[in-house]
Amino acid sequence: MRIDGQRLWDSLMELAQIGGTEKGGVCRIALTALDGQGRDLVCRWLREAGCEVRVDDIGNIFGRRPGTEDLPAVATGSHIDTQPTGGKFDGNYGVLAGLEVVRTLNDHNVKTRAPIEVCAWTNEEGTRFTPVMMGSGTWAGVFKSEDMWVRPDLEGKTVGQELAAIGYSGTVPAGPSAGYPAFGSYFEAHIEQGPVLEDADITIGVVLGALGQRWFDVEVTGMEAHAGPTPMPLRLDALLATARLIEAVNRIALSEAPYGRGTVGFMQVHPNSRNVIPGRVKTTVDLRHLDAAGLERMQAALYAAAEEIAGGTRTRLGGIKIDIKLATQFPPCAFEGECVSAVRNAAAALELPTLELVSGAGHDAVYVARKCPAAMIFVPCKDGISHNEVEDARQDHIEAGGNVLLHAMLARAGRV
Amino acid sequence: MRIDGQRLWDSLMELAQIGGTEKGGVCRIALTALDGQGRDLVCRWLREAGCEVRVDDIGNIFGRRPGTEDLPAVATGSHIDTQPTGGKFDGNYGVLAGLEVVRTLNDHNVKTRAPIEVCAWTNEEGTRFTPVMMGSGTWAGVFKSEDMWVRPDLEGKTVGQELAAIGYSGTVPAGPSAGYPAFGSYFEAHIEQGPVLEDADITIGVVLGALGQRWFDVEVTGMEAHAGPTPMPLRLDALLATARLIEAVNRIALSEAPYGRGTVGFMQVHPNSRNVIPGRVKTTVDLRHLDAAGLERMQAALYAAAEEIAGGTRTRLGGIKIDIKLATQFPPCAFEGECVSAVRNAAAALELPTLELVSGAGHDAVYVARKCPAAMIFVPCKDGISHNEVEDARQDHIEAGGNVLLHAMLARAGRV
Repeated sequence: MRIDGQRLWDSLMELAQIGGTEKGGVCRIALTALDGQGRDLVCRWLREAGCEVRVDDIGNIFGRRPGTEDLPAVATGSHIDTQPTGGKFDGNYGVLAGLEVVRTLNDHNVKTRAPIEVCAWTNEEGTRFTPVMMGSGTWAGVFKSEDMWVRPDLEGKTVGQELAAIGYSGTVPAGPSAGYPAFGSYFEAHIEQGPVLEDADITIGVVLGALGQRWFDVEVTGMEAHAGPTPMPLRLDALLATARLIEAVNRIALSEAPYGRGTVGFMQVHPNSRNVIPGRVKTTVDLRHLDAAGLERMQAALYAAAEEIAGGTRTRLGGIKIDIKLATQFPPCAFEGECVSAVRNAAAALELPTLELVSGAGHDAVYVARKCPAAMIFVPCKDGISHNEVEDARQDHIEAGGNVLLHAMLARAGRV
Repeated sequence: MRIDGQRLWDSLMELAQIGGTEKGGVCRIALTALDGQGRDLVCRWLREAGCEVRVDDIGNIFGRRPGTEDLPAVATGSHIDTQPTGGKFDGNYGVLAGLEVVRTLNDHNVKTRAPIEVCAWTNEEGTRFTPVMMGSGTWAGVFKSEDMWVRPDLEGKTVGQELAAIGYSGTVPAGPSAGYPAFGSYFEAHIEQGPVLEDADITIGVVLGALGQRWFDVEVTGMEAHAGPTPMPLRLDALLATARLIEAVNRIALSEAPYGRGTVGFMQVHPNSRNVIPGRVKTTVDLRHLDAAGLERMQAALYAAAEEIAGGTRTRLGGIKIDIKLATQFPPCAFEGECVSAVRNAAAALELPTLELVSGAGHDAVYVARKCPAAMIFVPCKDGISHNEVEDARQDHIEAGGNVLLHAMLARAGRV
């Protein structure tokens, strides 16, 4: 059994017309009228495919294809809201791949023991309303619906008002309930949004989990002085110390290969004049790792490196001070073993080459995984680029990912 | 014979009242009415000390105490214009120490073979009109008066207009002439504007010369990518490469101790977001050395380091590009041996501890040195701070520097 790759592609292109941009991207921001139109189209397609559609009180959409037994559903999905300069595939692929699974099961008249559900989660991008991944986070109990309803956009319109305006303020309380228990399994197909699969020329990414993140704010304080009259040994150069910290962050991440990531992306130098030794630098460190122990090791190494760098500058004039504060953190998420195996086995049966990798960024599946077994399927995207109108993916990759999703779900739902 | 340290100090404090700021600094910007008042006071003092005062066509002031023979003058001086948030000592000390030398010779009824001249150079700071060191540079033939007269400030007023407005557009052509040949020697007393003397607890700096400078604009280009999904080996991190360049600049300067200086003071990171790998960094490099060969070595080492850093990043994705352009340069200036010896000998005779050092910044003496033998005398300033209202110096140091100036000039002018 195979999905209809052309039908999936055509649905993606049709949905991409709602909010389509001149450059070939999509601007369909959460809870706008365009988002409402996109939702209407997806709901219509789900109903046409025989699904019972329900909407919860944070606007998450669920399309259910009944099973033959009273079992928790095997679910899949993603989101259809986009960045202001978003692409056709981010999120939309996961929702429409789920729709295509249902259509394919219908085509082949296949019944499953567990129900099949297709989810479209509200406001994954967080570009208009924070927090990001609002719908899946609320479903998972990380946020409360009543707290989310009052979140305003820049014009003061709230999530609650805008859900009502587009007709998606449902009555079902968000989250697993007696009528709709947590899924038996959840799968999410997504473009990789990174360069790994394309670089390795591999079609299917078996996603082992999502990296935990720790974000730090760093302030390095030295002593501002004129570049001319100040000999090298009498300097307390805040930028030189920062350069050493950047090198240390890179070394720390490399020592935790392949899942460690360390990035310094932001820097503000004071007074930022070519002939003045910098007296103060504000910067940031972003550390990521697949497991909490690894993150702990990286954080400890960061603090130790800062201490060593500062210590090495101590003169009778004083020394450099490096102040590091944890700004935000997201715990790592390891996807459930049997769901990951279902993805791996489906790809193997389809004779598709796979690579085991991790998601560096957040996805709805990361929140859903807090309530039920979950896994993700990645397919390559062109140059690893996403959140951009030039976002692109190959039709054969899109189709291959859909087939892996079909067979992974079928394995978990049980073909009757 | 000793100068009157209290009189010198009192004159400094009196001049500092013209444009004095609440924080104890001075704001007496070149060719403003306040600069005119300061000039008037200095000219009056010079005349009261028996000097013949002349003003050249760029507004430089010369006060001459006649000698007994027809010899080139032995001169000293500096400037009385200040930064907008300037101090009491920068420049003013050099002019008034010269005045104090004349007053002291008068007190002791000492005649010299060569005339003694006290100079107050126009617009050393360059804060209102560029270039910096305009008066001494014009005297030395580096600039032409007619080119300088048309230089505008931000309001469009020109140097020529403003010289006339304050009554200092003199008729004598700037520069050595038949009537006023280049000086036999030129000495300039100045606060160090750096931390070396204070750090070493030494009163007198024997200045061997001024560092040559080469300023570079640098652009580092990598590839912007999301910090999460991009593994370490697939990155082209422009900021990491820049960090390595900063470390290299420091290493290059240290390898040219004690006169090599290397500073990265400016940095602009793109897109400057904590979770995006920087794709582009604009930065600068300031290299200084006492001799041209040293500057050449440093520049070659900078280019080699950039090539090595860029080369180390080459992957199948491409590589980091480091583009370095020379933006500005000032050649090194070695002061004349006999003038430097005169300073050294005067300090030794006065039993004052000395340190041989270099000027990292520019001074009028650097331009004057192009036309005649010259040297400088540094005294410590508090915490090495200058160009700041908190600029400060000790009265005993100010006096000691004045005594060194007196005896160095006397040695070169010849006591009758």
